[in-house]
Amino acid sequence: MNLDFAKSDGLVTAVIQDHATNRVLMVGYMNEEAFRRTVETGYATFWSRSRKKLWLKGESSGHRLAVKEIATDCDLDAVLVKVAPQGPGVCHEGYESCFFRKLDDGEWRVGEDRAYDPGSVYGVEHR
Amino acid sequence: MNLDFAKSDGLVTAVIQDHATNRVLMVGYMNEEAFRRTVETGYATFWSRSRKKLWLKGESSGHRLAVKEIATDCDLDAVLVKVAPQGPGVCHEGYESCFFRKLDDGEWRVGEDRAYDPGSVYGVEHR
Repeated sequence: MNLDFAKSDGLVTAVIQDHATNRVLMVGYMNEEAFRRTVETGYATFWSRSRKKLWLKGESSGHRLAVKEIATDCDLDAVLVKVAPQGPGVCHEGYESCFFRKLDDGEWRVGEDRAYDPGSVYGVEHR
Repeated sequence: MNLDFAKSDGLVTAVIQDHATNRVLMVGYMNEEAFRRTVETGYATFWSRSRKKLWLKGESSGHRLAVKEIATDCDLDAVLVKVAPQGPGVCHEGYESCFFRKLDDGEWRVGEDRAYDPGSVYGVEHR
């Protein structure tokens, strides 16, 4: 039973969840090679749609995501990856989770403090 | 600050999480109208990519998803919707979560029992 990479231009949606706290940290996309590497190396690897290349999360920051469990959904076109984050945050903007803005009376508001200083981790370059 | 619907053919990815247990229940997609209805009605509404129409989750089963909180990510192209599920499960195959299969030594295995009988809820028709 294989994942359905054909449905969305060769990609499946990957939801990344902290295995200890169950917080959803980010959403990425994996092609078949990224998924294979994620399973084989034990570290979450994505396909960057903007840069059109494989992207080992944490490659530059050191904040890798160690895989604890992988599930897939009924349609086999999404995966849920539970991870142990090796760093204070996954978001290149410095937050623990990329989902740091909440809808509040029609406006998106930042609801938490930064977990680290992205400038000192990434310099000018993101991620 | 608006969601970026342009990036993926008019859709944002919507991760649905149980607000009480933090279990990730499903992944769907929302166009601008589906997102607007989700916010205005308080019930998760998706764009069905296969049926190419708006889809109020629970329309036929009664298992609606009452919205508790909505967050968006740094790229504004995904939303995390915390919900109170009004029913035993969100998956049309009868499970609490669509992510009922886990990767186990290279094979996807069902790791839990069904939460309800999908035949009695949906009849022949799915969802």
